Amino acid sequence: MSTDVSVYEVGLRDGLQNEKAIVPLVDKVRLAQALVASGLRRIEATSFVSPKWIPQLADADAFCGALPKAENVTFSALCPNMRGLERALETTLPEIAVFISASETHNKKNLNKTIRESLDAIKDVIAGARQANRRIRGYVSTVWGCTYEGAIPIAQSLAVTRELLALGCYQVSLGDTIGAGTPGQTREILAAYLAEFRADQLALHMHDTRGTALANILVGLECGIRDFDSAIGGMGGCPYAPGAAGNVATEDLVYMLFGMGLATGVDPDRLLVAARVAEEVAGRSLPGKVHQAGWFPKRLGNGGGDVELSKLK
Amino acid sequence: MSTDVSVYEVGLRDGLQNEKAIVPLVDKVRLAQALVASGLRRIEATSFVSPKWIPQLADADAFCGALPKAENVTFSALCPNMRGLERALETTLPEIAVFISASETHNKKNLNKTIRESLDAIKDVIAGARQANRRIRGYVSTVWGCTYEGAIPIAQSLAVTRELLALGCYQVSLGDTIGAGTPGQTREILAAYLAEFRADQLALHMHDTRGTALANILVGLECGIRDFDSAIGGMGGCPYAPGAAGNVATEDLVYMLFGMGLATGVDPDRLLVAARVAEEVAGRSLPGKVHQAGWFPKRLGNGGGDVELSKLK
Repeated sequence: MSTDVSVYEVGLRDGLQNEKAIVPLVDKVRLAQALVASGLRRIEATSFVSPKWIPQLADADAFCGALPKAENVTFSALCPNMRGLERALETTLPEIAVFISASETHNKKNLNKTIRESLDAIKDVIAGARQANRRIRGYVSTVWGCTYEGAIPIAQSLAVTRELLALGCYQVSLGDTIGAGTPGQTREILAAYLAEFRADQLALHMHDTRGTALANILVGLECGIRDFDSAIGGMGGCPYAPGAAGNVATEDLVYMLFGMGLATGVDPDRLLVAARVAEEVAGRSLPGKVHQAGWFPKRLGNGGGDVELSKLK
Repeated sequence: MSTDVSVYEVGLRDGLQNEKAIVPLVDKVRLAQALVASGLRRIEATSFVSPKWIPQLADADAFCGALPKAENVTFSALCPNMRGLERALETTLPEIAVFISASETHNKKNLNKTIRESLDAIKDVIAGARQANRRIRGYVSTVWGCTYEGAIPIAQSLAVTRELLALGCYQVSLGDTIGAGTPGQTREILAAYLAEFRADQLALHMHDTRGTALANILVGLECGIRDFDSAIGGMGGCPYAPGAAGNVATEDLVYMLFGMGLATGVDPDRLLVAARVAEEVAGRSLPGKVHQAGWFPKRLGNGGGDVELSKLK
């Protein structure tokens, strides 16, 4: 199925690692199944991080063994270090992810390493992953600003992105970790990035902390970006970035893209089912809006006088 | 003070009429004071509608008498009919508002009149208001779609807008009453509008039901629109449009505009104070995001190591 925009689902990882609830394996599998059923084709399942740091993902190994078998779906997992990679290589996951912050202070608080030390560690992780024939995706966080350092110079983000791509990441996802970004800033950041990199080497990973995620994604679309991270229901955040609320909700992102006539391969109704499963699994109301309000127009067949679902331009 | 963008605050009217709580007059006054203190210069205070229909605004007459005296602030009130206008003309309000729906079914359910009957009634209201030297603003609702009718042809919205402007409205605010709009659609609607009307004759009144309000407003900005309605805290909705959540939150709108370097005349810190007052007055958490997450970067002086507030582009 051809798609115009690729949605990279991070709810099981970025979402669940920030939920208070420690979700049982069986519920994670149920959510993974609902995500696959909705048509999402790139799903980050977990992180091979120490259970001491993120107990929510302590079952990473078992979960990877229990993931639904689905052709055309690429599951991936974050590997913060060589120990994480070793665990990932025990699985059949075709893809791993590495991450670094553009902010020295945030990197230190998040990974307990300087950016330089992190890049050295990532170098080994990527070399090991390549040797084992796994694709590698990179994350650069705090590109739009950092709670500790404030504004982050674009040159700083560009430098770490350059290294990640040179080391062998097929794509780097740029994170607005604290959800501070605004559209003019996004345009400025992407202009600098696109002067050096191809659009398909980049993705946007926007948090909706201040409500601006979809506006920033719209700017990304206008600049030619076609890869966007999101979390079902709007789960997620960053435990080391105080005040950071959830990732942009997958259903809100897909609603906007659908309305713009951009194909994602995602089934609208099944996506809302997945959001309901996410709420059950998280044991709380999630902040995504479309799963609360419903699709518009509704599909015929959902009830008597409903309006036929048609592509809004 | 010169501004780039004019924010038209509707929380006291569109917000409070949809809150379950019947807010005492003294609290409304406190919220009005906080809004004025934040630097907002256009504030819709209430609606002169029958208390039978909207008990939340039953104190419209008394409230207009108790509004803070503030130079440079224009308070207005909605007048659904001649009885409403008569009440408005007992006050010193310099501006009134009239409204109509682009959807025949929504208009019928909302006003118990056909669009034609509503326009005839509005004609008398506007004539009376003009005679009394009051400015008149118009609303057209369901421009982006209607719960009952689905997609609304642009020609239908244009036709009622044309009549409102011809009758003497200085500006017509186009409403996404059910918060269904997406950016391509907004661009299409505004292209049709701007082929016929000046940008300053138009405003956008977006609901954030599906999270797309700021993205749609961004399109509005790109098309030259400079007038946007919003409600403090994200209060509001429409009691006759099932599923409709709040207006876009004033603090989220101002945050985005500020980040884009667009002056609104609004003080960021005082606006967040107003949002807190709105939550107290409504007696519940409100959905706006920036009042929860805080401004970014923070101002120097708000605490030790805070980052200086600088214009993000």
